[in-house]
Amino acid sequence: MTGKTRQGRSHVVIIGGGFGGLACARELGNRDVDVTLIDRRNHNLFQPLLYQVATAALSPADIAEPIRRTLGRYRNVKVLLGEVHGVDAASRTVSFDGGRWISYDYLVIATGSEYNYFGHEDWRPLAPGLKTIHEARLLRQRLLLAFEKAERSTDREEQKALLTSVVIGGGPTGVEMAGAISELGQAVLKQDFRQIDASLFRVLLVEAGPKLLAAFPETLTDYAKNTLENMGVQIRLGASVSQISPNAVQIGEKSVRAGCIVWAAGIRPSPAAQWLGLETVARGRIPVDMHLSVVDCPDVYALGDTSQFLDEHGKPVPALAQVAKQQGRYLGRSLLKRMAGEAEVKPFRFHNRGNTAVIGRHAAVFDFGRWQMKGRLAWFLWAVVHVLLLVNFEKRILVSLQWMWRYLTHNIGARLIDENTRNIPATTDIQETLR
Amino acid sequence: MTGKTRQGRSHVVIIGGGFGGLACARELGNRDVDVTLIDRRNHNLFQPLLYQVATAALSPADIAEPIRRTLGRYRNVKVLLGEVHGVDAASRTVSFDGGRWISYDYLVIATGSEYNYFGHEDWRPLAPGLKTIHEARLLRQRLLLAFEKAERSTDREEQKALLTSVVIGGGPTGVEMAGAISELGQAVLKQDFRQIDASLFRVLLVEAGPKLLAAFPETLTDYAKNTLENMGVQIRLGASVSQISPNAVQIGEKSVRAGCIVWAAGIRPSPAAQWLGLETVARGRIPVDMHLSVVDCPDVYALGDTSQFLDEHGKPVPALAQVAKQQGRYLGRSLLKRMAGEAEVKPFRFHNRGNTAVIGRHAAVFDFGRWQMKGRLAWFLWAVVHVLLLVNFEKRILVSLQWMWRYLTHNIGARLIDENTRNIPATTDIQETLR
Repeated sequence: MTGKTRQGRSHVVIIGGGFGGLACARELGNRDVDVTLIDRRNHNLFQPLLYQVATAALSPADIAEPIRRTLGRYRNVKVLLGEVHGVDAASRTVSFDGGRWISYDYLVIATGSEYNYFGHEDWRPLAPGLKTIHEARLLRQRLLLAFEKAERSTDREEQKALLTSVVIGGGPTGVEMAGAISELGQAVLKQDFRQIDASLFRVLLVEAGPKLLAAFPETLTDYAKNTLENMGVQIRLGASVSQISPNAVQIGEKSVRAGCIVWAAGIRPSPAAQWLGLETVARGRIPVDMHLSVVDCPDVYALGDTSQFLDEHGKPVPALAQVAKQQGRYLGRSLLKRMAGEAEVKPFRFHNRGNTAVIGRHAAVFDFGRWQMKGRLAWFLWAVVHVLLLVNFEKRILVSLQWMWRYLTHNIGARLIDENTRNIPATTDIQETLR
Repeated sequence: MTGKTRQGRSHVVIIGGGFGGLACARELGNRDVDVTLIDRRNHNLFQPLLYQVATAALSPADIAEPIRRTLGRYRNVKVLLGEVHGVDAASRTVSFDGGRWISYDYLVIATGSEYNYFGHEDWRPLAPGLKTIHEARLLRQRLLLAFEKAERSTDREEQKALLTSVVIGGGPTGVEMAGAISELGQAVLKQDFRQIDASLFRVLLVEAGPKLLAAFPETLTDYAKNTLENMGVQIRLGASVSQISPNAVQIGEKSVRAGCIVWAAGIRPSPAAQWLGLETVARGRIPVDMHLSVVDCPDVYALGDTSQFLDEHGKPVPALAQVAKQQGRYLGRSLLKRMAGEAEVKPFRFHNRGNTAVIGRHAAVFDFGRWQMKGRLAWFLWAVVHVLLLVNFEKRILVSLQWMWRYLTHNIGARLIDENTRNIPATTDIQETLR
């Protein structure tokens, strides 16, 4: 595998096919440059709706698209399935899948983030996060299996444990999961099960901080809290998790038995900084300048969750899809300018398109900075925005319509338990899959 | 778990939630009887389209529905997720999941069939069949991974091997898989890959017998053969497979390296007969009389692939979904009659709705016994029939439309490689999942 430039054209290597990496590749598509995008997965994921895969409203394929198809129409863009484990800035090469390497003229690092277990790596398999299709499928299966086991159980205590879900982390993902699990339970337990006492079903949302959705203004966080509580979600604020075992969580003094445990308690950047042997900032993020250029690494750029960009007020931009998307688009354009020999390129500026979290059907919050929005209208806006994003993402209108349809009609779409996970997978199994 | 009858009502236990078991349960739904349906999976599968999951045209959830939802509206029907391992006709109990048991007044065995490796169980993980979602997903991932590896390979011989698929068995499933794989390759290799020489892509269809689709009349089998060959499928008739290794198949004298190996070479009944300690017929099938009643087992009935029913001419009915469906419906009705004390119940008669196999887009064959059909019109009829069956199966019109849409527009829908199978799973892994 060589990355040498053809016909003297520059070769841009992009690591990561998420929102940022793809936006960058699209900008460079069918232009006078060679591009190689490397990802360890063959698909890009519409993560904002991943929680709906975990709660059986969507199929994985509804929100995932093969990177090859996304970029198929750009003849100058190559896609490689491979896992990067090193970058040599001196020789300008990227090494992947042990032994293989590719050289670059410009390198874009868009490797995103993963869930942070704050030193408790052993918790990862017990309480999966929500970053990959596999994790979403795993959570979905644990949830549904717990229901099935409860249906068969004759021991009320065991039933109660199996029908308890614990969501750790009160950020957007935690709030969305807690709301969606509670809706799933209410939708299926009464109607489709015969033995289960639906009153035993409960969802616990545990947040170490003093409030939910810390990034949002007070009015919205209060609204989120009240709405969730009205949906039957039990919220524990200022409560920290000290231990997780396969079927229980230690919350403060109390040990809670649970059939499904979800981790949504904060992310950490990908290990990309280590590849470069860089001094990192903000828990492992790669420091970049106003042009997303990595300090002291010529022609190496980083964007999205794995980088630390300070806006004009010296404030770091949040870890959001829209940031990665905007940075990717910006970087694609500015790289073209640099290759064209343009002297000065404008620095990146983040345009806040609004921060949102959905709490449940008919309930969401929007924060546009200057003004806020909550309730039914916000939910409707959320749904419309996501259908449009999904259509744009997938170029598959029917899928989006179907999603909207299922979602509005409470038709639980994808309640599948794979044959291969009827028993909760062994630690090693999951470890391997989350590598 | 007790199966004792409530309010003196009879308790019917149905083992298996396939076409037959569900049809039977539906007939008994909301009638004056208690019903328990046991299946080791939580979903029922529209197997006629499973090959499209294996070839990335459909998502698993598109053709699978939670049994609980299918039967949710029948308040007298209970669904149990469990794996049956014994039947005691004397005490009228069914034991499942080791230790658990349930008692019945009437027992319906609808456990279907599995792929037969004719004594080579070690081939099962190397050449998966096409009976479960997991197998379909596995095949899909092997196919797509082989393409990805070929894209990265610089060794032409290795590329050729990775781009070779071998389908073993020339029945409907084998023909459908061979056609669909060849269409998938032609659809994606040229457009989405950069390094691959698409001319290296090939599909081998191996049949030990003298012709494809042996159950169909000459005219149709010839048509199928010619059509497949025009699609670029290489057909080996009268060729037997003597050995399968992880990446190669021994066909007669010749060893063929392959990136994906599919097994479609015949089925065998479920081990249900052994539970009953019965004298079996026709390679392990349960002999039943004209009323589907198991010989020498009072109040035990068997239907579909796992049973052997002889029609009025003494000819065994074929192992088809429509047979199981008709027998299930018949059995439900006749059980109600027996409980109502009706003296004599009419024997089961099979009504042939036509036997079909799809070869590729715009090509299918239909055999209605008296007359046949092939080509574009047959394909169109096949597509319409399956959309209707799917709608009826799923009660989800949009899914069916979406499928039709994708199928007609050649839009490859679900080209996902799970993170957890980037490397082909270890034998043990698959063994476990196919249990």
